[in-house]
Amino acid sequence: MPALAPNSILISEVGPRDGLQSVATVMPTADKKRWITALYAAGLREIEVGSFVPARLLPQMADVADVVAHALTLPGLTVMALVPNLRGAQAAIAAGVHKLTLPVSASQAHSLANVRKTPDQMIEEVRLIAALRRDTAPQVGLEAGISTAFGCTLQGAVAEDEVIRLALECARAGVDEVGLSDTTGYANPAQVRRLFGRLRSALGQQAGAAHMHNTRGLGLANCLAALDAGVRTFDASLGGLGGCPYAPGASGNVVTEDLVFMFEAMGLSTGIDLQALIAARAPLQAGLPGEPLYGMTPDAGLPQGWAQAAP
Amino acid sequence: MPALAPNSILISEVGPRDGLQSVATVMPTADKKRWITALYAAGLREIEVGSFVPARLLPQMADVADVVAHALTLPGLTVMALVPNLRGAQAAIAAGVHKLTLPVSASQAHSLANVRKTPDQMIEEVRLIAALRRDTAPQVGLEAGISTAFGCTLQGAVAEDEVIRLALECARAGVDEVGLSDTTGYANPAQVRRLFGRLRSALGQQAGAAHMHNTRGLGLANCLAALDAGVRTFDASLGGLGGCPYAPGASGNVVTEDLVFMFEAMGLSTGIDLQALIAARAPLQAGLPGEPLYGMTPDAGLPQGWAQAAP
Repeated sequence: MPALAPNSILISEVGPRDGLQSVATVMPTADKKRWITALYAAGLREIEVGSFVPARLLPQMADVADVVAHALTLPGLTVMALVPNLRGAQAAIAAGVHKLTLPVSASQAHSLANVRKTPDQMIEEVRLIAALRRDTAPQVGLEAGISTAFGCTLQGAVAEDEVIRLALECARAGVDEVGLSDTTGYANPAQVRRLFGRLRSALGQQAGAAHMHNTRGLGLANCLAALDAGVRTFDASLGGLGGCPYAPGASGNVVTEDLVFMFEAMGLSTGIDLQALIAARAPLQAGLPGEPLYGMTPDAGLPQGWAQAAP
Repeated sequence: MPALAPNSILISEVGPRDGLQSVATVMPTADKKRWITALYAAGLREIEVGSFVPARLLPQMADVADVVAHALTLPGLTVMALVPNLRGAQAAIAAGVHKLTLPVSASQAHSLANVRKTPDQMIEEVRLIAALRRDTAPQVGLEAGISTAFGCTLQGAVAEDEVIRLALECARAGVDEVGLSDTTGYANPAQVRRLFGRLRSALGQQAGAAHMHNTRGLGLANCLAALDAGVRTFDASLGGLGGCPYAPGASGNVVTEDLVFMFEAMGLSTGIDLQALIAARAPLQAGLPGEPLYGMTPDAGLPQGWAQAAP
């Protein structure tokens, strides 16, 4: 977990990865770059810009190296990418990515569907990637996200002990931090507090981000619960895009605009300018014409007299 | 505040009042009755069925006495109505309403727009209504809701001291409980915890319901914050209908379906059957054809293996 000032929150924008992998349309590369530039201009300093996966599986990500190259020109931005295996990690490191995120499913069924490995086989892959990082690119960050940590549309309930066991295995395998993902929108605030509390007890400072979806409308409430449990890094997606192609029924991520509004209204500092963030919807929409964007704050507008500290 | 079992939550459905007052279409009386019956069948045991206001101001509520008469046939249901003044209270008591709710705006501007009285003039009215109740209908419940308690679209910020002062004045004027309403969707969880905490310190067991709107997507997070502050009664509206005709930009209430899903998933008991609650959207939609209904849980469906304790 990066050092943050007290009262500071790190929002990690995952729209260019989690959002774009979930829509059928392939956003043109030039639009992706304009969108990422607009997100950066709004104050985002960590963006998951894509995933290094075979283009035949996710044609939306075929241009990921080109997108990374653009993102690397933005000073102070942590450029992240998802990699499902060693081969992806090699390509991501070669492209200059600052931080890799590795999906480790707690659900056996989702793990097989998503990465064609059991959770324990995936831990082996994490070990290989951590060794690669240690030997060839020690400056690169490495985080694991335990997906389907709160339940799975394929297998139903997921045991909390198994989630914590896998998180510990990831840490032992050599990653810097481990977050928890509600891939399918099953989480509730009591569960979020309990499981992030256990994660923190087990991993201390290596306990990582909350990655929440808004499938049943609980996204912000679950982020609030994670905040209570000490989480300070939150994944979110502009316009609430997102889902998982291998988790039936999974829908959008927590809406970045609403999440930033909530934290800023609470007096926490995200470093993000809300007006500029809302303006970043225009290049997103231009690149995905007709795709529905979500977000209550953009629709309602900011409250009268809304004033934010300058980022 | 009614005595509730530990872990029990009282959901007070306000759709037939707050929802219907906010849509231009007048729902036919027969549809209102069918809808209320369906809400009751789902397990709701407190419903705000309408408001006693002049029909020329709110034609949607012209049939309120007839709707009350129907609701009174449902055993064990607490039939509530909003009354803005003594005349409304007389009519509501004559109609047999079990519990009156009185709107007291903390914003001077909203108070004048909503009830054409200053907040202190409204406290005078509350005193008259409490005297009427004491002298003519001591069995009738009386709650005040401090509207625009978290901010106002007309005047902007609302002082927390003023909210607590008015809540105390309402209690002194003779009401049983005082709740707080985020009429305009300005509230954030930190403010909700703080203000409900202060309300509880000031009023003890007379601290009442949380009435949250979802204007900027924070509705459920704010309910979670209120729960943390000890609140056990929550207003909500099926399909997220709602708003205030005299608060520009105010939009829908917290969605009952999503709120019940959140609490039940957390292991709290609302006494409401979610499948039956979702089924209660059909008569609502039938009575308001073409009106958009909100709610993520109805769209996404319940999680695999979802099981609720029987109400």
